[in-house]
Amino acid sequence: MGNITKRTELYELGEFKLIDRLTGSFVPKHQETLKGVGDDAAVISAGNGECLVVTTDLLLEGIHFDLTYFPLKHLGYKAIVVNLSDVYAMNATPLQVTVSIGVSKRFCVEDLDELYRGIKLACDNYNVDLVGGDTTSSITGMTISVTAIGKVKESEVVYRSGATINDLICVTGNLGAAYMGLQLLEREKRIFETNRVAKPKLEGYDYVLERILKPEARKNVIDNLRKAGVKPTAMIDISDGLSSELLHICKSSNVGCRVYMEKIPIDEQTAKMAEEFNIDPFTAALNGGEDYELLFTVPLSEYQVVDSMEGVRVIGHIVEPHLGAYMVPPSGEDIRITAQGWNALQKE
Amino acid sequence: MGNITKRTELYELGEFKLIDRLTGSFVPKHQETLKGVGDDAAVISAGNGECLVVTTDLLLEGIHFDLTYFPLKHLGYKAIVVNLSDVYAMNATPLQVTVSIGVSKRFCVEDLDELYRGIKLACDNYNVDLVGGDTTSSITGMTISVTAIGKVKESEVVYRSGATINDLICVTGNLGAAYMGLQLLEREKRIFETNRVAKPKLEGYDYVLERILKPEARKNVIDNLRKAGVKPTAMIDISDGLSSELLHICKSSNVGCRVYMEKIPIDEQTAKMAEEFNIDPFTAALNGGEDYELLFTVPLSEYQVVDSMEGVRVIGHIVEPHLGAYMVPPSGEDIRITAQGWNALQKE
Repeated sequence: MGNITKRTELYELGEFKLIDRLTGSFVPKHQETLKGVGDDAAVISAGNGECLVVTTDLLLEGIHFDLTYFPLKHLGYKAIVVNLSDVYAMNATPLQVTVSIGVSKRFCVEDLDELYRGIKLACDNYNVDLVGGDTTSSITGMTISVTAIGKVKESEVVYRSGATINDLICVTGNLGAAYMGLQLLEREKRIFETNRVAKPKLEGYDYVLERILKPEARKNVIDNLRKAGVKPTAMIDISDGLSSELLHICKSSNVGCRVYMEKIPIDEQTAKMAEEFNIDPFTAALNGGEDYELLFTVPLSEYQVVDSMEGVRVIGHIVEPHLGAYMVPPSGEDIRITAQGWNALQKE
Repeated sequence: MGNITKRTELYELGEFKLIDRLTGSFVPKHQETLKGVGDDAAVISAGNGECLVVTTDLLLEGIHFDLTYFPLKHLGYKAIVVNLSDVYAMNATPLQVTVSIGVSKRFCVEDLDELYRGIKLACDNYNVDLVGGDTTSSITGMTISVTAIGKVKESEVVYRSGATINDLICVTGNLGAAYMGLQLLEREKRIFETNRVAKPKLEGYDYVLERILKPEARKNVIDNLRKAGVKPTAMIDISDGLSSELLHICKSSNVGCRVYMEKIPIDEQTAKMAEEFNIDPFTAALNGGEDYELLFTVPLSEYQVVDSMEGVRVIGHIVEPHLGAYMVPPSGEDIRITAQGWNALQKE
């Protein structure tokens, strides 16, 4: 394996540059392929003004989840939801999922029953059908691969690339909570590993724990925007942290942005935990990841609609590309946005 | 994890019973879902007489491939082809694939370049678009998850369930070659492990090696059947061995079958290798797996068309369900078909 004269480590490129390198030479051949690599989901024309969107996520034990504290039912639920979040981010309605699992002998049938109870609950809550998958043994823990399929009118698809100058930047819910929930679980795990009789101290942290263990996708916001007749100009789901997603929209739309730090929604429990952990809550919001909220832009003319919409916060606006992507703090100089987001291909 | 009072090991159920248990409670809610779990691919109505089919396969290092002898470019090619084979088995035309990979630090960027060269070659050869995926790190070797999407008119979809009494049973190409190729690679690996200077003896075995390392999907047969105006009544791709697939068709169609052993196509090199390894070549054909040929049934009236078709062999016929599924040897008693096929959830 490998090339004797040249070995480039994966972390040298990072996830996004690696994807560009590997998939750059793939040019769609079919007119049905409206969007290939490079958005939350692929978009495939069904030929009658309707499109299907397709998105897939791979979840690996030890990377994406730790079964010492992640209940299997929650894991099944989350595996579905994180894919549906990508479907909603295209402004589409999810209809079907496939679920493939690889499991080692460590797991028994009753474990998988639990996993599938979570999968079933998510499918019922979000009204999607499980339509297939693959089941195989593994020599190394658990692997879950989910593909979600959604439907949307071609005229209603929202890409990352449609943001224009003066558009408002909006975010749903609040950010950084899942990251703080993860810190808490990791801390209690470390304590438990050194003292097996210690009981994990998780009381009073229900909200941040729920955000990491049982996230929800923002179906309600998509429904409300549709009811209000507002079509976002660009949209992405927040899985790698706000910074990373803002840069995706700016790059795809060829624009810059100004985001006001004090507008970024952070829950009280997130702020409290951040203080306890001596972490800047904005760091959790900007770079934490796994929020599964939606980041979207709308024309300035929709200000009143989005400003009064439950669970939506206007946090900034789109500017000309040469002005770059910056955070505006309450005082002091603007801070350039960099993607320090969760890097799945990091060195350690 | 697990239930204190009850622990059922995965091998006690086996792959097919496990899938039934895990997915049995999922009933499709959407009228667009024409077929969920239980065929080579899910079938989703696009609303204008057209359907999309969706299939997915999970390939895990150490279970489905061994990188000590599997070149990464071949692996990329095969990962695509095995999914396209499922699309063809629905009588559909594959149009798009998504590819997710999990890779440990053992791999470098140049390794993934090789893998994607194989993926690209398969996409070009079969005229499909790569439209998405997921790239992540892994703590345990390589994971590949591919989802393939195909298109077919609703009236042209072929399920496993359509075989009727007196239908002819047909198979494409020949069987057992991939299994013998695998035996050869495993033998040479064992020799190499005990004697590092031994050179693998692979000359003269090109065909069986190609069948395991670089299989092709039977696009040509699907094209020829369409040109000849023949629509199979039932179809499945042969990934787990002929026996297992025959039983799938019999169970789904509620019929029995008679298959004539001397009609089962076995390549000369497969037979020669089987002799060398002291393996019954019919065992390789019936239970070996990974052939990626098509098994299908046609009405008796199409005998002349399929009998004269290149790469297609008539091997038997469908009988009433109470007559069961049996192999007919040249002499002696009929042999009941049992699925001893490759079991991904076996004990060892």
